[in-house]
Amino acid sequence: MSMPDPIKHLLTSHCEWLKGSGPESEVVISSRIRLARNIAGFNFLQKLSRGQESAMIDEVHGAVSKSKNLKDTFFIENKSIKEIDKTFLVERHLISRDHAAGKGEKAVVISPNEMVSIMVLEEDHLRLQVFHSGLNLTDSWRLINTIDTELEETLTYSFDPTLGYLTACPTNVGTGMRASCMLHLPALVMTKQINKVLQAVAKLSLAVRGLYGEGTQAIGNFFQFSNQITLGQNEEDIIDNIDRVIRQVIEHEKEARQYLLDKKRGKLEDQVWRALGALKSARLMASNEAIAHLSFIRLGVDLKLIEDLGLAELNSLFLCVHPAHLQKIFGEESSANERDYKRAELLRSRLKQVGLV
Amino acid sequence: MSMPDPIKHLLTSHCEWLKGSGPESEVVISSRIRLARNIAGFNFLQKLSRGQESAMIDEVHGAVSKSKNLKDTFFIENKSIKEIDKTFLVERHLISRDHAAGKGEKAVVISPNEMVSIMVLEEDHLRLQVFHSGLNLTDSWRLINTIDTELEETLTYSFDPTLGYLTACPTNVGTGMRASCMLHLPALVMTKQINKVLQAVAKLSLAVRGLYGEGTQAIGNFFQFSNQITLGQNEEDIIDNIDRVIRQVIEHEKEARQYLLDKKRGKLEDQVWRALGALKSARLMASNEAIAHLSFIRLGVDLKLIEDLGLAELNSLFLCVHPAHLQKIFGEESSANERDYKRAELLRSRLKQVGLV
Repeated sequence: MSMPDPIKHLLTSHCEWLKGSGPESEVVISSRIRLARNIAGFNFLQKLSRGQESAMIDEVHGAVSKSKNLKDTFFIENKSIKEIDKTFLVERHLISRDHAAGKGEKAVVISPNEMVSIMVLEEDHLRLQVFHSGLNLTDSWRLINTIDTELEETLTYSFDPTLGYLTACPTNVGTGMRASCMLHLPALVMTKQINKVLQAVAKLSLAVRGLYGEGTQAIGNFFQFSNQITLGQNEEDIIDNIDRVIRQVIEHEKEARQYLLDKKRGKLEDQVWRALGALKSARLMASNEAIAHLSFIRLGVDLKLIEDLGLAELNSLFLCVHPAHLQKIFGEESSANERDYKRAELLRSRLKQVGLV
Repeated sequence: MSMPDPIKHLLTSHCEWLKGSGPESEVVISSRIRLARNIAGFNFLQKLSRGQESAMIDEVHGAVSKSKNLKDTFFIENKSIKEIDKTFLVERHLISRDHAAGKGEKAVVISPNEMVSIMVLEEDHLRLQVFHSGLNLTDSWRLINTIDTELEETLTYSFDPTLGYLTACPTNVGTGMRASCMLHLPALVMTKQINKVLQAVAKLSLAVRGLYGEGTQAIGNFFQFSNQITLGQNEEDIIDNIDRVIRQVIEHEKEARQYLLDKKRGKLEDQVWRALGALKSARLMASNEAIAHLSFIRLGVDLKLIEDLGLAELNSLFLCVHPAHLQKIFGEESSANERDYKRAELLRSRLKQVGLV
């Protein structure tokens, strides 16, 4: 089940959900569903002893071993990897910041194509996640539901017939499910319609967050939309609701892109080409600046202003400019200032062949 | 003496003082000496009738015709050219903003290589100017003195044995001379030493102004240094003084450039290459932004970070991005917004071949 160096594998392979091949990939980077599950007979995380943590990791390891759907997955215990590798997994959305930083024993199960990750001993005992490229919550739900059912054959979940799945935080009680999509909305930002859209979405009980979840900024015009409600609705209804709202947001973004192309083409081209110019010429580049420029490049690729650059390569660039990725790519730990040089170097070399239409 | 279209000639020829061939051209764009002269028997400008203006223009035209040193010069009356052509001459420093905007009859004498210009009926009856490339006030003084002497054979200047040459503004009385040099000081600005230098220079009785003289901003890190004093010192002493101070400023600028190269190379290269990236990729560019970028390019050329670009071409680009120049180059009048497109287009095409070392 485990391989000699799962981090190395993840670094060199292309993960499935970044391929930019799913439905509505021009606007939707990825869809994700996560389920919060706790195992009966164990206290919630805050009251769990170190010995119980180990016992739980063993129990989950056993359950994963028996799962057909989790065959060939990596089972990584946090204590077995370096801090930088944890940051690397955070940057790939495979574990949360809390999971990386938290005290105590923890582990994560990761499928080689990165469509599945199961955090063990995050806020809940288990946090199952399934990712798909583009807008595809239905397939994510189908896969995560299968895995969940399969694990339940071995594990006994904390479940209340009235409330549903019991979770460490009451906001997750019920389905324990959060469905979310990462959207790229540069045109709504450029046309200053984004706040209106976000306000409308909030009224429909959706939460909006930045690139790395709760409390993070919307850098690069990326917005994560997810359901607020986990109780009183079944999973399919929650997913149908969020899918419907997101399709409306996509529609608005596409209209805004068309408006920019039709009415503000000069300004649009100027911004896209300046972004490419900066990425191809800078010698020092901070990650937030890189992401802001790549955001315009992504818009330019969708609107066919830029050639020789696919969404898969571009999505991978968004990941590569992050600190841990940079250090893994260059094979050595480096200071923030050194990384600014290396980031600029990486971007120049990866974008060398990219031209303007 | 006059040619069918002097403006056209100026647009298509390379003017002498922009060649970047004079001493200290890496730092000093040009040296200029101007003499303020008034003609005896005429009131100062403010009390001059329209008829007297015409008479004076005729008298100056006659004197210029007899001058060997002003052979083949253009004699342009302001009323014979369009507003945009006056702006064009302002941008080339051949006439002042006041001369272009002023009411009443005015004229200007311009040598085809643009080393000599004589404004007729600016603040004084005559404002003689001579330009040289680089730091070369000595040659400018020699040439302007010759022309001045030659004109005096025909014209009778207002002169007082005690005060010297009489001028409309008392600050010019005496020699009526202002010697100035246009310096490019990007490294002193980048290393934040510029204010200290400017303060020291002010104590030595030099005035510092921006790219277009009094009251204009120091855009593009260009600073014009000139003498404050016109009375009580002879011309050679004034020139010696300013020359000595400017050599010190040049020394400081060169030390600052070397410091950047030795100690801040990464940051320096980043700024130079980002500037080139912006100029080569933008689709919309305002003139001040263009000048700011070109300023870094000029520094990069001097420090051999940029290849395939000579100082002459670069100096000419600084001129070409100005509004009237752009309109003359593209052959049609255009709005500020249209010019932003054309400016970006011109810069991209002129810098296409320019690469980074």
